Order: sequence, then structure tokens, then C-alpha cells
Amino acid sequence: MTGYIPGEQPDSPDIIKLNTNENPLPPSPAVQTALDDISADSLRRYPPPTAMELRKAIADHHRLDEENVIVTNGGDELLRLVLGTFVEHDESVAVAEPTYTLYKVLAQAYGCGFISFKLKNDWSFPDNFADELNSSGAKLLLLPNPQAPSGHLIPAAEISALADAFEGLILIDEAYVDFVDPALQHDCVELIRNRQNVLLLRTFSKGYSLAGLRMGYGLGASSLIGPMQSKTKDSYNTDLIAQKLALAAIRDQQYASKSWELVRQEREQLRKNLGDLGFGCSPSQSNFILVTMPPGIDAESLYLALKKHGILVRFFNEDGLQNCLRISIGAPEENQKLLAAIKRIIQ
Amino acid sequence: MTGYIPGEQPDSPDIIKLNTNENPLPPSPAVQTALDDISADSLRRYPPPTAMELRKAIADHHRLDEENVIVTNGGDELLRLVLGTFVEHDESVAVAEPTYTLYKVLAQAYGCGFISFKLKNDWSFPDNFADELNSSGAKLLLLPNPQAPSGHLIPAAEISALADAFEGLILIDEAYVDFVDPALQHDCVELIRNRQNVLLLRTFSKGYSLAGLRMGYGLGASSLIGPMQSKTKDSYNTDLIAQKLALAAIRDQQYASKSWELVRQEREQLRKNLGDLGFGCSPSQSNFILVTMPPGIDAESLYLALKKHGILVRFFNEDGLQNCLRISIGAPEENQKLLAAIKRIIQ
Repeated sequence: MTGYIPGEQPDSPDIIKLNTNENPLPPSPAVQTALDDISADSLRRYPPPTAMELRKAIADHHRLDEENVIVTNGGDELLRLVLGTFVEHDESVAVAEPTYTLYKVLAQAYGCGFISFKLKNDWSFPDNFADELNSSGAKLLLLPNPQAPSGHLIPAAEISALADAFEGLILIDEAYVDFVDPALQHDCVELIRNRQNVLLLRTFSKGYSLAGLRMGYGLGASSLIGPMQSKTKDSYNTDLIAQKLALAAIRDQQYASKSWELVRQEREQLRKNLGDLGFGCSPSQSNFILVTMPPGIDAESLYLALKKHGILVRFFNEDGLQNCLRISIGAPEENQKLLAAIKRIIQ
Repeated sequence: MTGYIPGEQPDSPDIIKLNTNENPLPPSPAVQTALDDISADSLRRYPPPTAMELRKAIADHHRLDEENVIVTNGGDELLRLVLGTFVEHDESVAVAEPTYTLYKVLAQAYGCGFISFKLKNDWSFPDNFADELNSSGAKLLLLPNPQAPSGHLIPAAEISALADAFEGLILIDEAYVDFVDPALQHDCVELIRNRQNVLLLRTFSKGYSLAGLRMGYGLGASSLIGPMQSKTKDSYNTDLIAQKLALAAIRDQQYASKSWELVRQEREQLRKNLGDLGFGCSPSQSNFILVTMPPGIDAESLYLALKKHGILVRFFNEDGLQNCLRISIGAPEENQKLLAAIKRIIQ
């Protein structure tokens, strides 16, 4: 097996990084204040093992109880815990591709089966998806929403219907859900209130500009959260500083909302501008867009040419994603530089 | 299965915590300086995925190459990675008990076999240990050294002989090795230089007073480190702040050495004082001592009485550890308060 290959992480500060979906804005000023308040001496002791103060703040934010929340070392740890807790090695994980390529790597590393379905061309579920999943015997469906790498949002009602009919567990990977247009009133938290087979993954990496901190969390029925919390997670899985900074971030919803709105505005502007240049950009509810090439333009060549201009975007050379680039939404000036570079390259 | 039950972690600052082997001294002042230098803005981006700067510093410290080092989210993550990378689910992990109770929990969580041997009464290896291990088919031996919870040090030569004869892999859990008396010239790093079947676990939690940070590392042949580094660890397993603070800590060896020496002095003083009160304390090369009771004193009762005095120690009610307490070495004034409380309780 080969490991997951993350996007390039160059050291140079001059590079415009639009390849790993980081937030273009800094975290809330409250995070800096919290950081300033931490003394190195406090690190002598083990951190709170269940991150209770942060769990309570997250529960309050989502109007849930703390027993519905688990805090993890990035969303990656939650994915691993869900596999390890709910899938036996002779059982299988299902995905609908194209999807986040990490899922397959995780299933291989864990040593369980991996079943791949194909999304339709419009990124919607395959026909009779629940029946197909049940026939396949899949124990767990990993479902990014908004989807990766398309940015397409599956309506909560469709997932609700799927969860009712599917006999296994659904993990909805909501890493990018903060960037969904609020006008859509999209809300999958409701799905976990009366269901024992839906888990949500959230992260501080994107919506709260804290990718460097490695903090994520899971939401679900206490019957699902409990076993991960008390049995399968490492005793002290998140550190004291990360707990404190994440707490400061989630408490400043006003700042977070403003940053999400700016990303949405830039996303729509970038889609329009790329469309004007002949690129195809399907609607995205995420902080990235999947871009198809105009006639005569090769995605890999454009990726390499942009790299020469000091701009990194993501090129996937795989089924269903031929001749596409995934571009993270940058700060306004980064997006302008991207457009200027593309114009120079393709003209 | 039940999860690992860590020592109590009370919130009250008035409690004297001698139950989870934390370092009684604060981390190096260089850690505070490094903390002050971190800006919240820098957390917007993903951290260096392979923690290369820290790996190089660790490699330099041990006179190894960076390909011999993996940095992990606490020693716990390394234990999990070693299991997941080198042990199939139908294979087994071996331990010699009494030992760190987490090992059994990890094997159960991972879903592999668990084989328990018994240490002799003097904490030394069972007779014909390598042969017994080979006959058992054990794939991996988890070996804390200094041992937990005895503090007994197994000489490197004994482990070397065991590694030569054992057909599986040995993970030497050196969480407490910084507290070994330097006069013993104990060094297991030498064992990994020409061996493909020995890994060492180290942590910043104890020797560098950074339990709150969750940073550990593994040392071994590149053939062992490589697969964990590139295939089984989470892409971004340690966060930016933890990498920077650990770097500051390992670079200040002068401070670290002084702190280890103070712990050693206090350890020997506490052993002597407890011995004077009739307790049995076998030699320890760690930052804790395992204490047997004088006639007529019940360990659990003493544990509970100390708790009423606001002092936490560790009571294990298990095979080979009946009527024992494990006491972490505290700061001088904490150890004095412990002795005063014990005197009041037993007299």
C-alpha cells in the first residue's frame, strides 16, 4: 500500500498556496489572546483527557449535549477512530467516487474492505444508493459534504433519506460545511438527534483558520461517541494549547461568520472570472472550486505553468477528474494574481 | 473491552499530584521563549507534515540520521503506529508483566493477540525468554525500560542478547530513560544502529516537562521508521506549536540534565525516608518508585487516606502488585508533605 499524498507544503513565504484548502484569513484575534495567556509551566501536567471545557463549548454551539461531542487530533483522528470502533477487519467501508483520496488509504491502513461506488456526472448519488450499499454489506459510508473535490453540496434531506434506508453507519465529513451559503439553511446536525447511524466530522482547520493546530471534532448520538471517547481514542489525544486555542476560536462566532462570508464572496467572484476566461466551474459550497479546462488547455500543463509563476493549485490525475484543477479560494489579492497568471499562460 | 484508565487528573491546584509521573519542574525557559515567538496567524497553514526541523534536531541529539526518527503525537501514537505497521491482526504482541497496563488495552483495541509472560520477583526476564517468545510466535515485544511500574532498569546488554535471539521486533519504551543515573552509562540507542528489530520510544512528557504538549518520538532503523513515516501515520500528526516547543526543549540539554539530576536526588532521598518509615522501595531508575507496605499497613487504605490529605498516588489492585503504591517523585516540598502525611496516617 502507499500512504496518502497531501498537497505540496513549500516553505517559501512567496508561494501563493491554493492547493490544500487552507483559509486565506488569519484566525480570530481571540486565538492570539488565548495563546498569549498560556504559560509554558502549565505544560508540565497532562492535558484534560476528555477536553471537557472545549467539548461543552462545542456542544453549546450546536445545541447538543457534551456526550454528543468528541474532540480529536484533527479530523484525521476521528476518521481513524470511527473505522477502528465501528468496522471489523472483515467488514467494508464504502465511498462514492470521486471523493477524498484519504479514505481509501485509511481503509487500506486499517485493513478492512473498501467498496467504491460512482457518483453520477452531476455529483449526485448513484441510483438506488441505499439498496446498493445494503447489498454490498458496507458497514460504514464515508461521505464528504460539501463533497471533495467538487464542492457540490448534497441536500440534508437526501442524506436523511439515505440514513433511514441504509443499514450501516454514515460519517458525513463536514470539513468544509462552514462555507455553505447560509441562505440554503443547510443543517445536518439535525440528522444526528434521533439517529444512531449518523456521525458528523468537523474541523478547526478550515472554517477557523487553524490547520496548524490539528483540531477536529465528531458529533453524534452518545451511543456512537461514547465508545470512541472511553475506549478507542488515545488517553490524551489533544494537547493543552490546542484545546485552549480551539476554545477561543469557537467562542468567536462573529469573526468566524465574517471570514466565511468573505470566502464565499471571493469564491463566487473567482468562478465568474474563470468562467469569463472559458473555464468550467460547477457550483461550489466549499472553500475551493473544481475547474475544467477550456478547449485546447491541458490541466497538468496549466498546473505546472502556474507552479512556475509561484502559484500552487491541485491537479488530480484520476478517474472522473481528468483535465481538472482544484483551486482553493485565496485572499482577494491572491485570487487576482492567480487570474493574472492564468491569463498570461493561456493567451 | 474497557479502555485504559489513566491516573486521576483533578482540576484543583491544591492537590499534590504524585500519581501520573509528571515532572515536578517546569520546562526549560527556552520553551516559554519559543511560545512567545509563535503568532496565531502562522496556524492558518498546515504544519510541516514530517516535522523535519524537529526530526533533525532529535537525530543530531542522538547522533542518528533523520531517517531514524519519527515524531508522534505523544508516545501513545508511536505505540499505535508500531502495532498497526508491524503486527497483523492474526499475530500477537507480548509483554512481561507486571507492566504498563496500556499495552493490553492497545492490543485489544487493535484486535491482535496478546501474550503475557511473568517477570521474576526481582523484575528480571523470565528464564529462556527469547526461546519462550519465539515459541509463542509473538511478533512484537513491548518492553518498558526503566520498567513500569517498578522503575527497575534492564541492562542494555540483556536487551541486546534478547534482540539477537528473538525472531520478532522489540519496542523499548524509554519514556523514563532520562532519569537513569548517568554513572550507569546505560544506552540502548546503540542497539538500533545495526539491528532491524529494535525500536525505541521516547517522550517529551517526562524528561522535558511537556506532558501537556503530547509529543513523543521513535528511533530505529530506517527500514522500520520509513513505513510508519510514509504510510501509517496521519499526514499531519503533530501540530505546529508542539513541533516548535519540542524543538526548543530538546535544544536546551543543559537545563534538561539539571532537572533530571534533581529528580534523581529527590528519588534517592524519598526512598531513604520511606525506608526509615518501614516501607520497602526497590531501586528505581525512573521518576517514580514502587513502594511496598510495612506489616499491618494496607496500600489501598493508605492511598485513600493520602487522597483525603490532598495527595494523589497510584494504587494498582492487580497481580504482582498487591499492597503496593507507585509514587511519582515530586518537587522537594511536595515530597516533604507526602512524608509528613504518611507519618500522620500510619502513626
